[in-house]
Amino acid sequence: MSIVALAGGVGGAKLADGLYRLLPPDQLAVVVNTADDLDLYGLRICPDLDTVLYTLSELADPVQGWGVEGDTFQTLEALGRLGAPTWFRLGDRDMATHIRRTELLRGGARLTDVMQGLAAALGVRARLLPMCDETVATKVRTPEGLLDFQDYFVRRHHADRVLGLEFAGIEQARVTPEVRAALGAASTIVLCPSNPFVSLGPLRAVPGMNELLRESGAPLVAVSPIVAGQALRGPAAEMLAALGHEVSALGVAKLYQNLVRGFVLDEADRALVPAVEALGLRVLVTATVMTSPDDRRRLASDTLAFAETLR
Amino acid sequence: MSIVALAGGVGGAKLADGLYRLLPPDQLAVVVNTADDLDLYGLRICPDLDTVLYTLSELADPVQGWGVEGDTFQTLEALGRLGAPTWFRLGDRDMATHIRRTELLRGGARLTDVMQGLAAALGVRARLLPMCDETVATKVRTPEGLLDFQDYFVRRHHADRVLGLEFAGIEQARVTPEVRAALGAASTIVLCPSNPFVSLGPLRAVPGMNELLRESGAPLVAVSPIVAGQALRGPAAEMLAALGHEVSALGVAKLYQNLVRGFVLDEADRALVPAVEALGLRVLVTATVMTSPDDRRRLASDTLAFAETLR
Repeated sequence: MSIVALAGGVGGAKLADGLYRLLPPDQLAVVVNTADDLDLYGLRICPDLDTVLYTLSELADPVQGWGVEGDTFQTLEALGRLGAPTWFRLGDRDMATHIRRTELLRGGARLTDVMQGLAAALGVRARLLPMCDETVATKVRTPEGLLDFQDYFVRRHHADRVLGLEFAGIEQARVTPEVRAALGAASTIVLCPSNPFVSLGPLRAVPGMNELLRESGAPLVAVSPIVAGQALRGPAAEMLAALGHEVSALGVAKLYQNLVRGFVLDEADRALVPAVEALGLRVLVTATVMTSPDDRRRLASDTLAFAETLR
Repeated sequence: MSIVALAGGVGGAKLADGLYRLLPPDQLAVVVNTADDLDLYGLRICPDLDTVLYTLSELADPVQGWGVEGDTFQTLEALGRLGAPTWFRLGDRDMATHIRRTELLRGGARLTDVMQGLAAALGVRARLLPMCDETVATKVRTPEGLLDFQDYFVRRHHADRVLGLEFAGIEQARVTPEVRAALGAASTIVLCPSNPFVSLGPLRAVPGMNELLRESGAPLVAVSPIVAGQALRGPAAEMLAALGHEVSALGVAKLYQNLVRGFVLDEADRALVPAVEALGLRVLVTATVMTSPDDRRRLASDTLAFAETLR
């Protein structure tokens, strides 16, 4: 058995963690969005990769979901005194990840190899795979102009109206051999409850990725990031609305209807089952909100059992 | 009045600080050794410049002399967990300096401009001038082979026998316009109590620097870093012995005899006065060990008053 999870940030990392705790660790590959990566202070920051890294290594802050639990901010505050911007809250232990990654990337290493090394150093035995090794950068079109993703998301608190999205550099991106091998060997592929536009959107937009997903013989199952019309975190709900979609699990299901065979939605959205089934999708209704580690493992288990019924 | 201090690390920074507290701040320029700079984690570390920076900005650790007082080591420890070496003890606040400097250098800024910006951000109004903008790297010849300076000094605790020194890159180094202007306008030039081989050695070896110093109309005064046959810190005493010099203030005076007009030595070395005077130097005997801020200011005051007598 070989499971591939496609993930963005916190929600995706939680389900990936559930799968990791459930499975023999070498049976899980997590393919992670890199289009919200950014350079700050000359350091390469990969928020989604690091959220998965810290979650699987049990370093993650359990409350906010990102960053390292109990981290301090001495370096960031000192950077502020030196005139550098500090709106992106990088902790001291987190900073080490960016410093080390940047050093290795500048030395010519591929991001895939760098992350594998970081994961190994932190004891993570799942394969933690960037969606690509090239630089892709999500830009958000707003009435204020085209914003870098983290500028929109963190600095401006995703308060701008979203007119559209661009994934700069996506044409030059390539599916890595590692992602190709993982998808080729996958017995099940899980689309984690991540933002369909800015997390799984760029991931699917890597040239060739969608085809590899579609042509995989494995059942594909998506878990809705929208529960009762709301995103558990982040701007998925606003984006659905702004981009002309229904703000519900059904709206998400429509985005995935030509890709996945099964769709997992929350008990709060049971009323949507007929409409999702009408799209040609099989549906699992379960508790999808992951508060505790047990929630993660149970949702992972339910999702895999559901996928088995779709073969 | 315009004073130029030539400095290496901790001892030099202390006397520079005494001068800074004594003078109107815009009347002091400190020209600092950069040949013990190094790259770690892809970051550019400038130990001597930063020691002067932190000392003048009152951030320095008053006990060890280098680094930031009360600094923490979260980033370094996390780098260690990621497999990076941790023998060079960079604190979290200190790390911000290296991150910011590296960012600006990679953006194409000269080290001189970068340091001026860092100094301004920390409220330092003296001119803090790298000896050059090019990369120079001290190498130590030992029975174990040619060692990078910080490898010899920090990692191996300057325990290797020194067979010789090389300043890699020194031929390509150039006196900066800022250093040239400072030396040209200097009314007094003070060689701080820094290691004559690895602090003031490379500084003087920048092509053209020694000539600028010699041709300056200003009196040059050196303060001995050796007191009672011992260096207050670092390997100056071992280096004097290993390189065939007398291990005393007289040994240091001989190294400077063709450059300086005046020599300051400690009361503990009063017996050496006739021998130093026999070199053709004028001598000031005073308390040169700087334990308190008052010690620094008093030694600065004594040294400047002594220089006045040499015009």
